Amino acid sequence: MYVCDVKRMEDKIKTFSQFGATGNGGITRYSLSPAAIQARNEFKRRMEAIGAEVVTDDMANMYATIPGSDPNAKRIVMGSHVDSVKNGGNYDGVLGVLAAMEVLETVVAEKIPHKHPLTAMIWTNEEGSLYPPAMMSSGVVLGKFDKEQMLASKSVLDGKTTFGEALAASGFAGPESNRLNPNDYKAMFELHIEQGPILEANKKDIGVVTCVIGMVNYRIRTYGQADHAGTTPMKYRKDALYAAAQLIMHIHKELDKLDPNLVYTTGEIVCHPCVHTVIPDFIDFSFDSRHEDPKVIQQVVDVIENLPKEVAGCRVEVEKAWARDTIYFDKELVSFVKESADELGISNQYINSGAGHDAQFVSEMMPTTMIFVPSRDGRSHCEPEFTPVEQCTNGASVMLNAVLKLDAKE
Amino acid sequence: MYVCDVKRMEDKIKTFSQFGATGNGGITRYSLSPAAIQARNEFKRRMEAIGAEVVTDDMANMYATIPGSDPNAKRIVMGSHVDSVKNGGNYDGVLGVLAAMEVLETVVAEKIPHKHPLTAMIWTNEEGSLYPPAMMSSGVVLGKFDKEQMLASKSVLDGKTTFGEALAASGFAGPESNRLNPNDYKAMFELHIEQGPILEANKKDIGVVTCVIGMVNYRIRTYGQADHAGTTPMKYRKDALYAAAQLIMHIHKELDKLDPNLVYTTGEIVCHPCVHTVIPDFIDFSFDSRHEDPKVIQQVVDVIENLPKEVAGCRVEVEKAWARDTIYFDKELVSFVKESADELGISNQYINSGAGHDAQFVSEMMPTTMIFVPSRDGRSHCEPEFTPVEQCTNGASVMLNAVLKLDAKE
Repeated sequence: MYVCDVKRMEDKIKTFSQFGATGNGGITRYSLSPAAIQARNEFKRRMEAIGAEVVTDDMANMYATIPGSDPNAKRIVMGSHVDSVKNGGNYDGVLGVLAAMEVLETVVAEKIPHKHPLTAMIWTNEEGSLYPPAMMSSGVVLGKFDKEQMLASKSVLDGKTTFGEALAASGFAGPESNRLNPNDYKAMFELHIEQGPILEANKKDIGVVTCVIGMVNYRIRTYGQADHAGTTPMKYRKDALYAAAQLIMHIHKELDKLDPNLVYTTGEIVCHPCVHTVIPDFIDFSFDSRHEDPKVIQQVVDVIENLPKEVAGCRVEVEKAWARDTIYFDKELVSFVKESADELGISNQYINSGAGHDAQFVSEMMPTTMIFVPSRDGRSHCEPEFTPVEQCTNGASVMLNAVLKLDAKE
Repeated sequence: MYVCDVKRMEDKIKTFSQFGATGNGGITRYSLSPAAIQARNEFKRRMEAIGAEVVTDDMANMYATIPGSDPNAKRIVMGSHVDSVKNGGNYDGVLGVLAAMEVLETVVAEKIPHKHPLTAMIWTNEEGSLYPPAMMSSGVVLGKFDKEQMLASKSVLDGKTTFGEALAASGFAGPESNRLNPNDYKAMFELHIEQGPILEANKKDIGVVTCVIGMVNYRIRTYGQADHAGTTPMKYRKDALYAAAQLIMHIHKELDKLDPNLVYTTGEIVCHPCVHTVIPDFIDFSFDSRHEDPKVIQQVVDVIENLPKEVAGCRVEVEKAWARDTIYFDKELVSFVKESADELGISNQYINSGAGHDAQFVSEMMPTTMIFVPSRDGRSHCEPEFTPVEQCTNGASVMLNAVLKLDAKE
């Protein structure tokens, strides 16, 4: 068994945490921003320093490859993203890139024999925080998103600059022929923080990810009437917020009867006119629910699509925004991850991913899997996001040995 | 009994509806805006045309006065405001000014004998839509608000221009000595649309207003934890929106046990971070409740201040924003309004005002009362705001005769 180096890992985490640092322990590093370009340059510098060849494709995805002993073998790729949400942390995404770099650095430093070329990779614009949508570039590479539409995606900050303009200005756009593809690449591993509290609660260092769970998204709207808060007797009111509160309570009551692993969330609520002296005439709230089992998701769909058509005198509108089925990762790669953790003596458990990742798209193209490391207090997408460097390095070690198991196989 | 003129009233409504017309049947006429200055100039032109003397005070409040037969008698003033909310209607405020003008025009046209000078008045910036707060100028004249602070109030549109700058630029600022005062003025009447559905529902043409009801305002906040919607099991969540929904339901359940005339409203709700994939960590919602009887308001206060300190794992914070006691109008003036409506054969009922008006401040300085006319569908502060011209004119006729009763008294 080989292990990665804690000091080297720590140095990378510290260095990359400077790019886009907010001053409050976190980062804002939108894709292709100056801060993201600093991170990309540092990736290139460090990978070239160990002899890797660094190329980019037309979506600015970056690939740093060290050769293997078999000139005809396909590459094994490891990667994630370096962009963050606004006021994000130092681990979501970037840790998967740093772990991939660490694997290559360990292989080179330890002269670990391997047949396949090994690639560390940066996916462009996974968060989609500045230029929506999320997982933009893996979506383009996998044919999920239309490239022209993505190039036209406008900055949420200025409403003007397009992703295409930022891409051209970045200097990181390369030829389309460099894209990840199943002829040149054998498999992909993505290491990521859990973004949840389960590993920490169970005192496990590694999550052996088996799937990205299915989900369904709705917008639920209530239509009332805007009347004066002081002059409208209660019996004449059509209060869209009171209607929405009743729906939220109803949803909790019904869904709490279902499988305890089900999660569901109303994260967004918009009120109109949102004036304290006016009865709201319109509420629009989001509904997001996730579970591995499509039968449970169907039970959720049944509850949501059978919400009452009218509540508190307000018309209720239910719109299905989108859904995705559970995506299972490659069973053999999952078993390599599990065996590697066991053999390294690193505590681990099977886990699913409730969040979306580039790996879920890639899994349609080639064998793919993910490795989770714990998130302290389950926090992510925020500045306090944290994983101890020992756990980060354990994750990289597990990925290294899983890659070597695949490498040794054929 | 004297009656006002429907045609003349209609002409005024149509003319003033042009100033700040949105093209959708309503107006946006912020105080001291070009549209509001058009309305002021039209007021001045029409009042001077019937021989009124027009002056302004230091807050640009406008007073148009016709003399009475007794040179030593105090003035009787009628008035309201000509400014509107954004996308407001053609009746809220301005109808009280047009009715005051109509009373003076009728008195002059019909040569109605009267001892007291009669004044039609415009209060500046009642809505406070561009330069908060509402009832700014009556607040300054009554010593409720500090004038210097009001002059420094910044435009909500550009965050820069101050009310003081707009006041200076308007050309309508006059000497402070022209302010409404109890030495020169005997009493004030304010005609206004009801802004509620009660008169229409009861098929009454006139509301004889007895009071502006007491109210209490709170901000209620829930503090949860922002976690990932897909990766955080339900049992670990601290969902600030779920907590807020529970509080809103609890408030409805408890307050619905109290007096049926009680009104209460959550018009504003703010969510953070308000992202559909993130559990909300903060909700801030308004609570506004109004009732004539302070004992009922105290019951409301008891419910709100005894809300649970923690709901769904979220800390609950209750902050009293402000409160006002019920303000009763002058009993004799109220009786003059009631008698006038009865004698004119206009259907009427006693009613209270759930909304605030300049008259409530003035009532602390001199005898004051209000007259309501119906609001179609109870709508106000919106473009569909409507009162048939016959009902508007009935309101003016009632005000005219109530003024004459006061005039005749001494």
